[in-house]
Amino acid sequence: MKVNGTPYRSLWWDSTKAALQIIDQRWLPYDFRIQQLDTVAEYATAITDMHVRGAPLIGATAAYGMALAMAQDPSDAALDRTWDLLHATRPTAINLRWALDRSRAALAPLPPSARADAALRLAHEIADEDVEINRRIGEHGLTLIREIAARKPVGEPVRLLTHCNAGWIATVDWGTATSPMYQAHDAGIPLHVWVDETRPRNQGALTSWELGSHGISHSYITDNAGGHLMQQGQVDMVITGTDRTTRQGDVCNKIGTYLKALAARDNNVPFYVALPSPTIDWTVTDGLSEIPIEARNPREVTHVQGTTSSGEIGVIQVTPEGTPAANPAFDVTPNRLVTGLITERGICAATAEALAEMFPDLAG
Amino acid sequence: MKVNGTPYRSLWWDSTKAALQIIDQRWLPYDFRIQQLDTVAEYATAITDMHVRGAPLIGATAAYGMALAMAQDPSDAALDRTWDLLHATRPTAINLRWALDRSRAALAPLPPSARADAALRLAHEIADEDVEINRRIGEHGLTLIREIAARKPVGEPVRLLTHCNAGWIATVDWGTATSPMYQAHDAGIPLHVWVDETRPRNQGALTSWELGSHGISHSYITDNAGGHLMQQGQVDMVITGTDRTTRQGDVCNKIGTYLKALAARDNNVPFYVALPSPTIDWTVTDGLSEIPIEARNPREVTHVQGTTSSGEIGVIQVTPEGTPAANPAFDVTPNRLVTGLITERGICAATAEALAEMFPDLAG
Repeated sequence: MKVNGTPYRSLWWDSTKAALQIIDQRWLPYDFRIQQLDTVAEYATAITDMHVRGAPLIGATAAYGMALAMAQDPSDAALDRTWDLLHATRPTAINLRWALDRSRAALAPLPPSARADAALRLAHEIADEDVEINRRIGEHGLTLIREIAARKPVGEPVRLLTHCNAGWIATVDWGTATSPMYQAHDAGIPLHVWVDETRPRNQGALTSWELGSHGISHSYITDNAGGHLMQQGQVDMVITGTDRTTRQGDVCNKIGTYLKALAARDNNVPFYVALPSPTIDWTVTDGLSEIPIEARNPREVTHVQGTTSSGEIGVIQVTPEGTPAANPAFDVTPNRLVTGLITERGICAATAEALAEMFPDLAG
Repeated sequence: MKVNGTPYRSLWWDSTKAALQIIDQRWLPYDFRIQQLDTVAEYATAITDMHVRGAPLIGATAAYGMALAMAQDPSDAALDRTWDLLHATRPTAINLRWALDRSRAALAPLPPSARADAALRLAHEIADEDVEINRRIGEHGLTLIREIAARKPVGEPVRLLTHCNAGWIATVDWGTATSPMYQAHDAGIPLHVWVDETRPRNQGALTSWELGSHGISHSYITDNAGGHLMQQGQVDMVITGTDRTTRQGDVCNKIGTYLKALAARDNNVPFYVALPSPTIDWTVTDGLSEIPIEARNPREVTHVQGTTSSGEIGVIQVTPEGTPAANPAFDVTPNRLVTGLITERGICAATAEALAEMFPDLAG
């Protein structure tokens, strides 16, 4: 997507330098910095320390890391060592393991001399696949936006609400929940996006940065505000991403998503989830009872990062010294509250039957 | 309530100094400062610049301001001038006008020589009435907490969730939503309070300061977390305050209250509102269509106050420069989502009939 008028992906291969370039997201939304990764250790740090974030982007980064490793040493030992090193960076990330396994499975049977080229081709393929999945999610989501726009007076914006950052910088391009927004904007449909702040980590600031950089009208709002806006008829549709969706369509996503789904239901606002198929966990059925919710560091709640009046990045503590805090990071939105799932193959109901029909090859 | 073991009200008359002492709340929760008000101008500033906040507390402060004015100049002209000056500080605050009108009506018929003493007696009366209303709300709320405690194994805490600060520092003492908590704690019932952060102004930090100062177990959480906690059976009851309640029991309170009410309903968690009768607006029936919602400065959303690592009070900007923000400050929880109203006369259903039966003298 565009940053100050220039199209970017969140990573790209610079073939003249034979090196991967990433947007170092630690500085967003305050500063736009590009970093070149030259060693496998730098790849590992970039993933561990969240220079890159978002499941699809981590997977693609790891695939390029494997390509760099193979260019330096295509031995079996290096292949295993790199798998171990990169996998240890974020051991619970499903896409990371998936990308590393796919790389090793493709490279191991090859003679070492063929591995470097094959690994780089595969990394390109994984990155391009992610872009294509998200582009298609956007196409399907666009049909929903078009339908809403068609019911409005010409020129009146379609008002969407989103939670967290399921944007292009969490993927290679397009994002998931944002892909329909970018495609609708580029198709000339007037939009206004309500961007949930998304405490405690304020990923809404990233979404605001993305949308603002691409020229999409939006308002940053507290997580508390969405219910009121829906009561007042100010929201036409909610679109969120998902971290993990069960085979019956329960959606585990950033904490607070469930509250927006409740408000949407109470006000007859459609609630859609943008769902790339790799995010479906076919081994899990009931999200509420089966998905453990990560409890993150309470400091994320009591301390807030931003820019100081002098423009530097700073942190302040909101609570009295010693205040105990709790920080559940995700919640589960039961499928009964989800109007539909926007996948790369089309839109389906959030039910076991509809998902199995859409993905017969995966549902098993 | 207690601060570091010492009982306080949020204002008190020091008879040796013949002057009102207030807790200067601009510095809470970071610093506990007491201020003496010596001139009517200082009273006006204290109200305008929110050294005192919360409708009941503002009313009581104004009554003491009138007493000071009468001690300095008990003329009719001074009576009117003080009414005008203090009323202009927060012209939309219902309790402010109510306290000033009550003072003027009581003082105007008196000979000037009797006004100073009468005004001070009246201020004490207004302050004590507020304390008594809130104490009774606490007594009635305590019965609900006792019922929950009785259903639990001995020693297991009753887990309450509250939003915003409806605490003792927003009143003269006890608070509204917090009064049942203080009384339950003082009665030896083990409690744990989930304290909603309450973006954008983070009044949860004030509630955490209050509860921590009084020794009540609590956790500060993001506004996003409450739904998940209710899904997981971690909340036994929600108690909030209210800024204005309609004659049919619709509750206008800090933005985000409605989302918690929805989650409570979805998880069969009782949702109670602590309601001093002066907060009922008998002229309004349907909260959603009749109550205009204040849109406050977007800077409250984009900028956050707290303490810096060096312990000073500082502000940081969370969003990218120039991000548009919207800041609706309140929302309306329809009466269908309210389990009951805890008033100073007892607990009643959130319906026009039940409120009229509880307050036949006020309902008109």
